[in-house]
Amino acid sequence: MRTVWWEKGRVLLINQKTLPETLEYVECRDVHRVAHAIKTLEIRGAPAIGVAAAMALALAAYTSQAASREKLWSELTDAAAVIRATRPTARNLFWAVERVLRKAKSVAGGVRAVVDGVVNEAVSMVEEDIATNKAMGTQGSALLDDGDVVGTICNAGWLATAGEYGTALGVIKVAHEQGKCLSVIALETRPILQGARLTAFELKQDGIDVKVICDGAVGYLFSKGLIDKFICGADRIIAADDCSVINKVGTHTVSIAAKQYDVPFYVAAPLSTFDFQHRLRDVRIEERDAKEITEINGRRIVPPGVPVFNPAFDITPPEFVSAIITERGIIYPPFTTNLRNIGK
Amino acid sequence: MRTVWWEKGRVLLINQKTLPETLEYVECRDVHRVAHAIKTLEIRGAPAIGVAAAMALALAAYTSQAASREKLWSELTDAAAVIRATRPTARNLFWAVERVLRKAKSVAGGVRAVVDGVVNEAVSMVEEDIATNKAMGTQGSALLDDGDVVGTICNAGWLATAGEYGTALGVIKVAHEQGKCLSVIALETRPILQGARLTAFELKQDGIDVKVICDGAVGYLFSKGLIDKFICGADRIIAADDCSVINKVGTHTVSIAAKQYDVPFYVAAPLSTFDFQHRLRDVRIEERDAKEITEINGRRIVPPGVPVFNPAFDITPPEFVSAIITERGIIYPPFTTNLRNIGK
Repeated sequence: MRTVWWEKGRVLLINQKTLPETLEYVECRDVHRVAHAIKTLEIRGAPAIGVAAAMALALAAYTSQAASREKLWSELTDAAAVIRATRPTARNLFWAVERVLRKAKSVAGGVRAVVDGVVNEAVSMVEEDIATNKAMGTQGSALLDDGDVVGTICNAGWLATAGEYGTALGVIKVAHEQGKCLSVIALETRPILQGARLTAFELKQDGIDVKVICDGAVGYLFSKGLIDKFICGADRIIAADDCSVINKVGTHTVSIAAKQYDVPFYVAAPLSTFDFQHRLRDVRIEERDAKEITEINGRRIVPPGVPVFNPAFDITPPEFVSAIITERGIIYPPFTTNLRNIGK
Repeated sequence: MRTVWWEKGRVLLINQKTLPETLEYVECRDVHRVAHAIKTLEIRGAPAIGVAAAMALALAAYTSQAASREKLWSELTDAAAVIRATRPTARNLFWAVERVLRKAKSVAGGVRAVVDGVVNEAVSMVEEDIATNKAMGTQGSALLDDGDVVGTICNAGWLATAGEYGTALGVIKVAHEQGKCLSVIALETRPILQGARLTAFELKQDGIDVKVICDGAVGYLFSKGLIDKFICGADRIIAADDCSVINKVGTHTVSIAAKQYDVPFYVAAPLSTFDFQHRLRDVRIEERDAKEITEINGRRIVPPGVPVFNPAFDITPPEFVSAIITERGIIYPPFTTNLRNIGK
């Protein structure tokens, strides 16, 4: 199953906001519809929005009336600006936009060749993402033992990627395919409840035992020895800051509690999530709409007039991370040094 | 304002389930209605359910047709059993039941004298609880400085007690009355969202700045220096286990993160919350209905067939607690030893 795909000049994606109750598809015919889908979390998950971003540029190319490469290039860079403005934190989105633009520049020939090159590049990223995640799952599965109870936060499954495996859940799924008996504790992950809604849905579909807890309960479970290992995905990993991990808000809190109780804390992320250009100080942590906290299912929870603080992500310093799982291998501390050993 | 009071042979209490949207009162004419209110969280908060438990016994006495002290005693112990079975973890409930039963035993005279003694004892506990909390607030206010941003979890305000001050919020309110400028970060506190609903409501009413965050975000705020101190209440403190603190699930997770970032972590609890009889191993951590997690506002979040784990409380070991604030003074580690210095 795919979360996003190209079909005759349209981009189709699974609407993750209506899951698990309803499986709905969103049809996008232009960049703005894809941008809207990314902004409103119809599609979410760092690798998935990377592919969606590439698809948005493919739509821009495909629907272009440009008569010259220059005009097409100008339209593509406009589209890139629209997409870059959707969500500031996840690395893969920027990585995908840059990659498609690079392709547009490097293709030989006329407008038609550039359009084809851009569309093919975007389309190829779907299967590439799946292959990457499967490779990552295979690498990471070595860290999981038969009988492990594995904690996870948010949704880092196939829904967070182009399809099939996912990042953190990919590791669990490959280990499960290898015959290891695993069970998963899914943190519900307020405010958007991706853990309760999406991770529970995915794992149930895959026949893997899963139990949902409230986010705050994780320290209690660690203290009682009820979670053996914890794996999460990442939205951006800052290579120059010793691979500090930016991920769904709540991740850092879990990582502190895991360290306190000596529970291994793993991050599974493809190399496209690593940021080799910026420092932590350059990264903007997205703050999302207060309504994500103040209202649940359309009913107000927080009294009117009371403000909220709703950062979408937090930053886990490297000392809280036991290992980072990539498609090329597992990296142990010191991360930045060891990142070089896998060829980056 | 009171959360629970006696009025002409009825017990009235504020229904905390409909707050902050609607201020509704529950009228109880017998023990079972009070027991239902405690079980379903119409009334919650360790000191508040203590007073409600006492009121339930007062109702049993007041409505009794018993012709002898023996018969009345038997009815009171039956009522005590009903109340004790409502919620297994909070200490104050057991403390209040024991206190009222002791009173029933010690009063001289006939049935009428016992009924009056029991009702008066229960009624006196309302004002006594408020006085205790005010004293605790005065003691604890010394720990707060002008300009502090204070974190709190769940609701440990007047709604969690008989009225007026509250425990953890009592400390904040007294400091505010002293002219200290404070602002509060309220953890929303899943699953029941007492922080988002009740703490935010209370502090707004009291004119104290409050901002709501998701529970998982607390580590991020600590890491960024955005919370100076953290104060919570307690449901039971096990004196013999160096004052381990049993409180709303999520508390221990916060305490670990606070320690990591050197943020003082205070617990405010009256001496009636201290358990001098049991050890940790004797205490049952209440597990509540799965629906508290799986459904929000009547809509299912977790896919059907996926189980949840819903402990209502967790246990914070003493090494994570900077000080315990009581009505008789502030206790620092080692807690059990220093508890003796305030005369317990």
